[in-house]
Amino acid sequence: KVIWTVLVTILGCASSLPVGDDSLCTAEELAKYKIIFTGKWSQIAFPKQYPLYRPPAQWSSLLGVTHSSDYSMWKKNEYASNGVRDFAEKGEAWVLMKEIEEAGEKIQSVHGIFSAPAISSGTGQTSTELEVHPRHPLVSFVVRIVPSPDWFVGIDSLNLCEGDHWTEEISVDLFPYDAGTDSGFTFSSPNFATIPQDTVTEITCSSPNHPANSFYYPKLKILPPIAQVTMLKMKKSQLGLSAPFINLPAKSNEIIDSVS
Amino acid sequence: KVIWTVLVTILGCASSLPVGDDSLCTAEELAKYKIIFTGKWSQIAFPKQYPLYRPPAQWSSLLGVTHSSDYSMWKKNEYASNGVRDFAEKGEAWVLMKEIEEAGEKIQSVHGIFSAPAISSGTGQTSTELEVHPRHPLVSFVVRIVPSPDWFVGIDSLNLCEGDHWTEEISVDLFPYDAGTDSGFTFSSPNFATIPQDTVTEITCSSPNHPANSFYYPKLKILPPIAQVTMLKMKKSQLGLSAPFINLPAKSNEIIDSVS
Repeated sequence: KVIWTVLVTILGCASSLPVGDDSLCTAEELAKYKIIFTGKWSQIAFPKQYPLYRPPAQWSSLLGVTHSSDYSMWKKNEYASNGVRDFAEKGEAWVLMKEIEEAGEKIQSVHGIFSAPAISSGTGQTSTELEVHPRHPLVSFVVRIVPSPDWFVGIDSLNLCEGDHWTEEISVDLFPYDAGTDSGFTFSSPNFATIPQDTVTEITCSSPNHPANSFYYPKLKILPPIAQVTMLKMKKSQLGLSAPFINLPAKSNEIIDSVS
Repeated sequence: KVIWTVLVTILGCASSLPVGDDSLCTAEELAKYKIIFTGKWSQIAFPKQYPLYRPPAQWSSLLGVTHSSDYSMWKKNEYASNGVRDFAEKGEAWVLMKEIEEAGEKIQSVHGIFSAPAISSGTGQTSTELEVHPRHPLVSFVVRIVPSPDWFVGIDSLNLCEGDHWTEEISVDLFPYDAGTDSGFTFSSPNFATIPQDTVTEITCSSPNHPANSFYYPKLKILPPIAQVTMLKMKKSQLGLSAPFINLPAKSNEIIDSVS
């Protein structure tokens, strides 16, 4: 089994899998993936201002979407939508879910939405399933960094289709992003709206270039990944069952038999 | 359209829909539901010790399962599993997801698991989809009350099958439960493990019968519902698409056509 480990940042990842190429996907109809999100936000890796109380370091629910290149959930150097702002600032998913739903209704650019439970520490795991379609082979998601002003990790438009087949397995290291809607510098900064709104930017060990920034580590060249996501293609026998099933035994044959 | 509004507490609901009767379900093969969870935890309805800061009143991710009567996620007057304890105390879903997965593998009692994003206030909404099967027509879920020692709301084994058909729509008022694993009396009580563990109990306006209890309202006869859940049966044309799709347009015909 070929394992692709993409050791670039998310945008690097998205730009190496060109947006727009989803029209070239000639893979079999549908593919289902198990998606596993792993927090790597430990006090050892990120000692500066590591949040220990009220709340301690943790991750919000994961909210994701499978879509075509006509939809974008979020993009580096572009303005965050109201839904992404609410999610990045408060973990509030409702507006973002409505935006996705509308994109599905108006321009048929969305295949489905998926969600995984929150993680109550900086280093836990969560998982769910997702489904992609040849016309909707791109995956995007966001997970809010808690606590933080408006910081999140995520994937923007990762293409799971490779020509005539679906990627078997892919792991991507995740780094923090700033949604550009709150000017707080540290994990526990009070709310301070950015007016006018700024674009989504990656937070690095040197940017924002200010010692107060919680991720400012002037001795590092790059930050360690704060999280990782792995997507594993599921067996065909499991297709037809509805997500977000986890590793349950393949009952799909039973069900398909009794339907036909 | 007939709307069933069940104005009883969850256990009342579960016991009026006898566990074990899932074997009598002769409905069509699968049914999909949109499930909408609405928080009603306002300061007006629950003024006592209403949490305003760090964290303010809010709801965790929703974690649910569709299953047969051979599985039980949680039950009043029984001991909570380790998974339910972790979820009720910390909103940590991993152990509970593993328990559900094992029940699916070992005794084939689980059809699927579903999850909906957290809500960042006491009165918001969240939603996802779920799928039931004639042999797995029961729905259970939990949502942690945040902040709280180990308090949650949820449904235990609600049967969506009515003989030869699936319920079209059902709404259930939800009331708080204590998982029996932490002895805190108030929303913001520090951790204080209950040893030995107690069973799951409903919290009412008079039980625990102690003025320190955050839900102790001696002048009330019953608490107002702290949340509500509605399940709406989705159209047949949407079957076959994977959950948790929200109200996206029915693309299932397209997909089914191109598969066949």
